[in-house]
Amino acid sequence: MNPQVGIIMGSQSDLPIMAEAAQMLEELGVNYELTVVSAHRTPQRMIDYAHSARERGIKVIVAGAGGAAHLPGMVASMTSLPVIGVPIKSSNSIDGWDSILSILQMPGGIPVATVALNGGKNAGILAASIVGSFDSKVGESLDTYKKTLKEKVEESAAQIEAKGWKEILKK
Amino acid sequence: MNPQVGIIMGSQSDLPIMAEAAQMLEELGVNYELTVVSAHRTPQRMIDYAHSARERGIKVIVAGAGGAAHLPGMVASMTSLPVIGVPIKSSNSIDGWDSILSILQMPGGIPVATVALNGGKNAGILAASIVGSFDSKVGESLDTYKKTLKEKVEESAAQIEAKGWKEILKK
Amino acid sequence: MNPQVGIIMGSQSDLPIMAEAAQMLEELGVNYELTVVSAHRTPQRMIDYAHSARERGIKVIVAGAGGAAHLPGMVASMTSLPVIGVPIKSSNSIDGWDSILSILQMPGGIPVATVALNGGKNAGILAASIVGSFDSKVGESLDTYKKTLKEKVEESAAQIEAKGWKEILKK
Amino acid sequence: MNPQVGIIMGSQSDLPIMAEAAQMLEELGVNYELTVVSAHRTPQRMIDYAHSARERGIKVIVAGAGGAAHLPGMVASMTSLPVIGVPIKSSNSIDGWDSILSILQMPGGIPVATVALNGGKNAGILAASIVGSFDSKVGESLDTYKKTLKEKVEESAAQIEAKGWKEILKK
Amino acid sequence: MNPQVGIIMGSQSDLPIMAEAAQMLEELGVNYELTVVSAHRTPQRMIDYAHSARERGIKVIVAGAGGAAHLPGMVASMTSLPVIGVPIKSSNSIDGWDSILSILQMPGGIPVATVALNGGKNAGILAASIVGSFDSKVGESLDTYKKTLKEKVEESAAQIEAKGWKEILKK
Amino acid sequence: MNPQVGIIMGSQSDLPIMAEAAQMLEELGVNYELTVVSAHRTPQRMIDYAHSARERGIKVIVAGAGGAAHLPGMVASMTSLPVIGVPIKSSNSIDGWDSILSILQMPGGIPVATVALNGGKNAGILAASIVGSFDSKVGESLDTYKKTLKEKVEESAAQIEAKGWKEILKK
Amino acid sequence: MNPQVGIIMGSQSDLPIMAEAAQMLEELGVNYELTVVSAHRTPQRMIDYAHSARERGIKVIVAGAGGAAHLPGMVASMTSLPVIGVPIKSSNSIDGWDSILSILQMPGGIPVATVALNGGKNAGILAASIVGSFDSKVGESLDTYKKTLKEKVEESAAQIEAKGWKEILKK
Amino acid sequence: MNPQVGIIMGSQSDLPIMAEAAQMLEELGVNYELTVVSAHRTPQRMIDYAHSARERGIKVIVAGAGGAAHLPGMVASMTSLPVIGVPIKSSNSIDGWDSILSILQMPGGIPVATVALNGGKNAGILAASIVGSFDSKVGESLDTYKKTLKEKVEESAAQIEAKGWKEILKK
Repeated sequence: MNPQVGIIMGSQSDLPIMAEAAQMLEELGVNYELTVVSAHRTPQRMIDYAHSARERGIKVIVAGAGGAAHLPGMVASMTSLPVIGVPIKSSNSIDGWDSILSILQMPGGIPVATVALNGGKNAGILAASIVGSFDSKVGESLDTYKKTLKEKVEESAAQIEAKGWKEILKK
Repeated sequence: MNPQVGIIMGSQSDLPIMAEAAQMLEELGVNYELTVVSAHRTPQRMIDYAHSARERGIKVIVAGAGGAAHLPGMVASMTSLPVIGVPIKSSNSIDGWDSILSILQMPGGIPVATVALNGGKNAGILAASIVGSFDSKVGESLDTYKKTLKEKVEESAAQIEAKGWKEILKK
Repeated sequence: MNPQVGIIMGSQSDLPIMAEAAQMLEELGVNYELTVVSAHRTPQRMIDYAHSARERGIKVIVAGAGGAAHLPGMVASMTSLPVIGVPIKSSNSIDGWDSILSILQMPGGIPVATVALNGGKNAGILAASIVGSFDSKVGESLDTYKKTLKEKVEESAAQIEAKGWKEILKK
Repeated sequence: MNPQVGIIMGSQSDLPIMAEAAQMLEELGVNYELTVVSAHRTPQRMIDYAHSARERGIKVIVAGAGGAAHLPGMVASMTSLPVIGVPIKSSNSIDGWDSILSILQMPGGIPVATVALNGGKNAGILAASIVGSFDSKVGESLDTYKKTLKEKVEESAAQIEAKGWKEILKK
Repeated sequence: MNPQVGIIMGSQSDLPIMAEAAQMLEELGVNYELTVVSAHRTPQRMIDYAHSARERGIKVIVAGAGGAAHLPGMVASMTSLPVIGVPIKSSNSIDGWDSILSILQMPGGIPVATVALNGGKNAGILAASIVGSFDSKVGESLDTYKKTLKEKVEESAAQIEAKGWKEILKK
Repeated sequence: MNPQVGIIMGSQSDLPIMAEAAQMLEELGVNYELTVVSAHRTPQRMIDYAHSARERGIKVIVAGAGGAAHLPGMVASMTSLPVIGVPIKSSNSIDGWDSILSILQMPGGIPVATVALNGGKNAGILAASIVGSFDSKVGESLDTYKKTLKEKVEESAAQIEAKGWKEILKK
Repeated sequence: MNPQVGIIMGSQSDLPIMAEAAQMLEELGVNYELTVVSAHRTPQRMIDYAHSARERGIKVIVAGAGGAAHLPGMVASMTSLPVIGVPIKSSNSIDGWDSILSILQMPGGIPVATVALNGGKNAGILAASIVGSFDSKVGESLDTYKKTLKEKVEESAAQIEAKGWKEILKK
Repeated sequence: MNPQVGIIMGSQSDLPIMAEAAQMLEELGVNYELTVVSAHRTPQRMIDYAHSARERGIKVIVAGAGGAAHLPGMVASMTSLPVIGVPIKSSNSIDGWDSILSILQMPGGIPVATVALNGGKNAGILAASIVGSFDSKVGESLDTYKKTLKEKVEESAAQIEAKGWKEILKK
């Protein structure tokens, strides 16, 4: 089956964060593709990627970048698909503020769906929830995933209540 | 036809911003509903809204709030639908930073698709692009909309080049 | 005797900070309970906790969370007890600003008594001072504690003045 | 009956914000006193106020100040009563950041219960919730107040749903 | 004579700031052209502009934009000419921080010569100083301009010293 | 008698703030001089001012500037006199942060005594306190001034307590 | 001879920074005293220190503190001597912003001469320059110190120019 | 051949960053000189450098400094050559904000071409692009360099697509 989510990043150094998106999509049963596309170093490649995505069957693009992060917004300007932006706290970023603001603060007309700083995992879940809005099987995977989150908290609470926090902190 | 997008906001004072989302959805031919739901003043109402949205046929929720803005994140925690968050620079906000950070910085597992500060219009477009990923008619409306944006810039450029910037600034 | 202070946190990873609140309450002779309650992963558990706290004899709730930290504010929206919020500089936080602003900047009507970033210890003292306002024995414990703080500074000053700062810095 | 809440502020120019605390306490049936005490211009007056508050029957102190706002923290250092701090965006403040940080970021041992910027109203409610923890009549007033908040949101929602947002925005 | 400086901006609303660059270039005797090019709304137009600039004889490009401002950086990625970026505090900007960071914080390999927020005038002078590095006539215009700046300060100082500050403030 | 305090500012537009320093010095009986010296537009004038100040009998220099404010630090680098820096929120400043940081954050070896944003008045008082450290008459003027500050607060407190805050707010 | 500069700090943990002030004063030949005084834990000790300083012959007070740093401002409110404030990036500080703002942003009437974050060394030099304004021997020490700074830079420049930067970087 | 670019820095500790500018200029075939010039510790040396640069054949000055970074702006005030400023996150800098703002926010009339925090490499490229505007050989070197950037991204993309991201991450 064709990939429904296209994951791109400005540099291979963004891979550890963006791999979390891929990981989540695998867990939730959504096909994806993943590659490197740089707005500043391969502008033509970015344009080609953005223009061809829809006809290749992509439903959502997930784009991560750091510093003056133009990739998500530029891709969003060249496709009508939803684009999820992942601000990355790269080595040249000022505590992540530049990454966040240059992805989030898009002008009227060209939205980017921004997630938390280094939020590769959440970008994967958000992409799945978009696919899952129209694909009930993915929707159910998401419900199951949410249940797991809940159970982990409950287990953790049960443990602390049973053993006492002093015991837990010792570990 | 049932609404596909549910627009909610924490307070009626957020309406001028959130109405821009409704306006865009109308222009792009997407059905929506719009109401007030407060995380802090009507928590039960928020829970009911989040829990029932999917089965009522909603595909995307757009939630706007300001200050310590918990509505988008709390709704996202109670549904597997994609939730778009609109940080609003309300009167009690510190230049919008609190609104942005309390919507954007969601923990792993519960994403919110955050748009720019006061980005009601972009939230509407983003919601449409999600619907349009699976509904080619809406996808085409978005392409037409993008073309209009382009033409307006070109017209404006033509005018400045023809008349000179001094003439334009006089107006 | 029933606990008078309920300490909750969004994740077990917050325990090292929140344990400082528990520690202080023990030192000041105030009964407490401590568990994990997540606004985003166990919303129903949070609601049950908030709704039942008062009738279970709780006088003050201390809630810690990081990033887009909704737990303190959401609990405050569902109880008339005072809620103390502890912003935690968790791994996904932007230097703590998100944690602080999403706890502090509550809208009119729903206050959260916010303490310093990672201020688990101060949250414990503040909870004790609330109990101590109406319980003179706890009030006296607080006065004794304040005296200890003073004496430690005086000792430290005496040492520096006696030995000279060069000697002290060598250690 | 003696006042249970003492409201103080660093300057008469803080009165419009701090009067909201007084207003809320009146609505919730809690006795209070209100005056001006400056940490920097009347240090001795501040010391006397802090030292005598407990024996005069005060249960909670609400202190508001702006800029390098030392009043709440200094009062907290001289009493074992809970002190609520209200950061005020005074004319000499940098968007309120100085007011917030110099009240919130108290060192270990001396907490201040900080509310939102210009949060006089919330300071009043928080003070009432502290009194109400031990006084069931005030607790009930708070429950009634919360119900009013909820009803206002529901009314506003009903109106928007009935009339449509376009009608509401016209006003 | 062909224009040596190309002034572009993301939107006609940036004209009042960018016209200051044009104004300075006229004063300093440097030919320029000025038009509107939007990175997000006319990406192809931007690409064409960037690719053709050098061969059309342009020596420096001055690009202004606000919010998530991608125009200067994207143009810089597609030309080897020096690109001066003007961060504009547009209506959708967060006090200008987004404009500054998304222009300034370019990744290694693709510099943008960033000037102060709303610094249209300084962008014009900087463009002239680049031309003037190789064109002694423009270099002399700049020296004359600097002398004028100096003389204005000296006049102003002489006036204050002669009349006294009280007299000056009355005006 | 020769001036003991030299007040300088980067631009005549800073005069309204810097005049407050002059005003305070007059009230406290300290002789001063006041003029315009720009680090960027009249560098030689700045150098001459800094180099000659000590031998002309100046004891303290008060320097105000906004934006990238280099005047206080540059003057401090060229004299061994204490230099007080006044960060000014000028029209080209980003909420004053640039003015503050470029005056405050001097490297080791070259201090500037920085006062609050727009703190012309406090700069005057600080200059007087430096003179007053060695001149008991000025020291006494400062004590008297402090007494006045105290009395104004006490009067304001007495009025609020006597009339009630509702009466005061009506005005 | 009596100390002319009084160095105080809120906690012994501030000593490494504040010792740099002491070190500089020794180098410049100015007598000083150094001790611990906490605004929040030993308020009475702080009051006594501030009130007695002038009559004990102190000419300048240097006060360092971190977080919600009230010591410099509170001491300044109780003496007419110049007070130099050193913002310390203590473990509980938010990147130093709280320390800076709660020292710098004093209200009109009560200045604190603030130096750079962790600027203990500069506080010592500033204190010496105040003493040196009226004591020519200290003034000369400062001139000598400035010469040393200059010579170190010149040496470093000569080395880089002679050996080339590649050689220097190897070390 | 004479150097066309003059690289200066406020302190030898800035060398690791500023050497990247030198490195890039070597790669791009542009002659340069490099030395240490401190605005605060060697003001006269700075003045001499700025005044003589043009007649010595320098076309662009690259100046790096950290904290309250006055070197780039002061040099720009004393020459009509273009000055590139490199904000350095030195040990005494507050996350680089002070360095950025004190270089970027120059007043009208005196521009500094500011590059990203620690952007020594980009400063070198920008200097080369200025030289390359008038020297086609350098322009061609820049085009070749841009091609290399592109090829590196394409290689990295090809590798990830061929091997899969899991394989790449293992390394």
